[in-house]
Order: sequence, then C-alpha cells, then structure tokens
Amino acid sequence: MIEGRTKIRVRYAETDQMGFVYYGHYATYFEIGRVAALKTIGIAYRDLEENGQFLPVKELHIDYKRAAKYDDEIEIITRIEEMPSNRIRFDYEILREQDLLVSGYTVLFFMNREGRPCKPSEDFIQSIKPFFS
Amino acid sequence: MIEGRTKIRVRYAETDQMGFVYYGHYATYFEIGRVAALKTIGIAYRDLEENGQFLPVKELHIDYKRAAKYDDEIEIITRIEEMPSNRIRFDYEILREQDLLVSGYTVLFFMNREGRPCKPSEDFIQSIKPFFS
Amino acid sequence: MIEGRTKIRVRYAETDQMGFVYYGHYATYFEIGRVAALKTIGIAYRDLEENGQFLPVKELHIDYKRAAKYDDEIEIITRIEEMPSNRIRFDYEILREQDLLVSGYTVLFFMNREGRPCKPSEDFIQSIKPFFS
Amino acid sequence: MIEGRTKIRVRYAETDQMGFVYYGHYATYFEIGRVAALKTIGIAYRDLEENGQFLPVKELHIDYKRAAKYDDEIEIITRIEEMPSNRIRFDYEILREQDLLVSGYTVLFFMNREGRPCKPSEDFIQSIKPFFS
Repeated sequence: MIEGRTKIRVRYAETDQMGFVYYGHYATYFEIGRVAALKTIGIAYRDLEENGQFLPVKELHIDYKRAAKYDDEIEIITRIEEMPSNRIRFDYEILREQDLLVSGYTVLFFMNREGRPCKPSEDFIQSIKPFFS
Repeated sequence: MIEGRTKIRVRYAETDQMGFVYYGHYATYFEIGRVAALKTIGIAYRDLEENGQFLPVKELHIDYKRAAKYDDEIEIITRIEEMPSNRIRFDYEILREQDLLVSGYTVLFFMNREGRPCKPSEDFIQSIKPFFS
Repeated sequence: MIEGRTKIRVRYAETDQMGFVYYGHYATYFEIGRVAALKTIGIAYRDLEENGQFLPVKELHIDYKRAAKYDDEIEIITRIEEMPSNRIRFDYEILREQDLLVSGYTVLFFMNREGRPCKPSEDFIQSIKPFFS
Repeated sequence: MIEGRTKIRVRYAETDQMGFVYYGHYATYFEIGRVAALKTIGIAYRDLEENGQFLPVKELHIDYKRAAKYDDEIEIITRIEEMPSNRIRFDYEILREQDLLVSGYTVLFFMNREGRPCKPSEDFIQSIKPFFS
C-alpha cells in the first residue's frame, strides 16, 4: 500500500455563500492528495506528463460528512491500496484534526499523447511494484 | 419525474493543461443543472435560501466518458426521479450533441439556518408533490 | 469600435462566504466578454488557437463598484476601442440591469506556438480593420 | 512597512489549456498573500470577519510578466507600504526562484455587517500602527 499525507489551508476563494467550502473544490483537494501520494514513492506527476503519460479521471466519488471552513487546516490522506493495472484507484480521507470531513475515491486511466488509453510505462510499474508485494 | 435541460458553453477558465475541462468543474455544471431542474417546477434555489432552507451536498458521483473541450456547447439534463424525503437525489447527464460526456448524481439534504438537518418546507413539498403521483 | 454584449447568470460556485461573487471570478467574466466581442466580428477564439495564435493576458485592471450576487443576471459589455497592434486592449463594463457593478480592462498580446510574442495574422487584421476606419 | 512571504505550489486545477496558470487565479494568490501579510503582525483575517469587519476588494491590478506552470513553487511577497485609513492597499510580487512572474496591487475597504463602509476597529489600528511610525 502507498499512503501520502499533506496539509493545506482552506482559501477564501474556496468558500461559498453557505459559509463552507464549495463541494466541487474537494476534487482539487483530491488532486493535491494523489500528487502527494505519488511523490512519496518518487513519482512526480509533472514528469509523467512530460514523458507522455497522462492520467485523466474516469470516476469520482465523494461522501461529505462535515463541512470545511475558511482558514481551516485540513489533512488529505491518500492511499493506493491495489497494484494499478491500466487503471489506478486512489482512496481519500480529508480530516480537520481528528474529524473526518470527507471521504471518497477516484479511478484514473493511463492515456498517451494521442489521447488513447494505454498501459503505464515500465518505469512507472517498477517504481510502484515494490509497494504491493 | 422532474426533468430540466439547460445549455452552457465551456469557458477557457474551465480547461486545464490536458486541453479538456478540469474534472472538478463538472460539480459546478451539476449545480447549474439542478437549479435549472428546480426552476422548471417554479422553485428558485435563491428563494429557498432566503427562506432559511439550504441544500448542502451529501454525496457526489461522476462517471467521465468523453472529455468536454473549450467552447463546446454542452447540455446538462437533470432528473429528480424519486419524491424527495429529507434528502433529494438528482441524476445528471451531460451531452455534446448526441454524445454522452458525463453522467452522475448528487444527494443533498435539507438544512436550516442553524446548520441542522431538517425537513423540506410545506411549500417545497406542495410544489414538488404533483410530479410524483 | 467593436462592441459585444453577453448575459450570464451568477453561479453558486462563484460566490464566497461574504455572500457576493469572489473578486477573482470577474477575470473569467471578462474572458467571456472578450470572446463574445470577437464573435460579433466573426472571429472565434477557439479557431485562433487552432491556427497557432494565442492571446495571453499582459495586464488586468478591475474597479469594483457594487457586488454581484448569486443568481443575478449580469450583462458583460466589452469594447475594443483602438485598432490592435501586437497588443489588443479590451474595456469592460458589467451591469445588473442599469447598475454598473464593475469596470475594467485587459491588455493581451499575440503569441505563437513557440511561446514567443508575434504579430496578429493577416486574417485577423483583415477581420478587424473595417471597424477602425 | 509590513511584509509577508508565503510559498505555494501551483495546482493542476489552476492551469488552462495554454499550459500556464489561468490569469484569474492570481487574484486568489494575492488573497493568500495578504492573509499571510496580516498574520505576520498577529491579525487573522478569519477573526476580523468574526468580529464584524469585512475587507471587500475595491480595485485590482495585475501585470503579467512570465507565466507560472503546473507544480511550480512560487513565492508571494506582499507589502503594506502605507498606514491604512478606511482603505488598505496591498502590493504584491510573485516570484519563481529569482524570476518575477507577476506584480500588482489591491485596494480594499472596511465594511461592517450591514454592508456599509466603515472605519477599521481600534484593535486593528493598534495592531498595525507600530509598523508605520
């Protein structure tokens, strides 16, 4: 299993008139979380794209339990629990101190420069494999 | 059943460096869709909030099939298929001409000014009931 | 002179906890306005990019007079008042009915695929010239 | 003079199809910068609002010099150069290592719970005064 943890502070721009974080911004928080998870095993998403590997999102699910507010420091915990195939699933939990605010997952697929689904590169597999044996 | 249809054009601000709409913005498109669905039966979400009824999102699910691009005209079709209780579910399809780009749903709950879950107002029920008999 | 007018409705996602449109979103409204202004003279910004002409923003100025609110219908009036050279300036006014909410301008420059400043294409000049004679 | 410095990393959500940060997001970066500047002198913007002092933006100006890209670490330097009256001006520079990407300023005014312009609270003045004598 791979796990990344990263903390961010809620921005004013992310609130809405209900006084909480707008529900769509958690997708951005998830993105920050999965980039952080990949960094823990030495993979920079930026490099993946430069090498012609893109990871578009296929599926997104979010369960909202408590609302994050402006200036809250929140922790994004991201896990890859299964060895990726042509797809890769990330599971997320967002916490404010001990309180679980949001949980969810995304499924992404590998895409090449031509916009076609493809296999992950050998480099990617070699980087990730040791964590699932 | 209640169905709303509304068309929007993809903004440059909504694209990302992959050249498509960033996956989180579909949550905003869904919001536009459910406001449009409620308007077809004479309910303005703005008025709901002014009368102390808020509808925070409890659950979001999105399946991404094809990518929307800058300047695409897309249609958001939103349905309420079941009579709402203390919760209300919206189902969405986003199309570009005949192509289904995205489908998904959200579950929302009714919340009062104090931030507590509550029942929908009698007005709300009376407006929506005729569509589910 | 070239003038474009377009109406949009404020989205919930665009509000912040102060209860108004977040100040940064007016940049997006300006973008919508300038695309609309170019469309009135037959230029689609989408085609410009496909033909290798990009228009990054060099300068942005916004004066905020009154706040737009959720669900407001607002009108974006955009003007090109001077014949563009290697730069092009757009002036904007955003109104809610008769009330001026925001005014401002942007200066953009022409950039080629290599990311270098360049002259506008002959096609662009021919499309725009008749409005400044 | 008051100066705050804070570093952030560009998010994927903030890029657009040109491959750079969308020009409107710098308004959010400025917001992060001014909150950081106020924190250096012990003022939390969150507390200001809880005490009924709001700071809406009156004027925004941005000069774009170089483009920020995905995953860039950028530094936001924010200065208050003049003792605030009923208005407060922040000047910004955003850098990537030694390169100046963007400069600009915002003018904000003090607003009370009723939405009316007002003077800054005595507490605010006492916190900020020592830096301008």
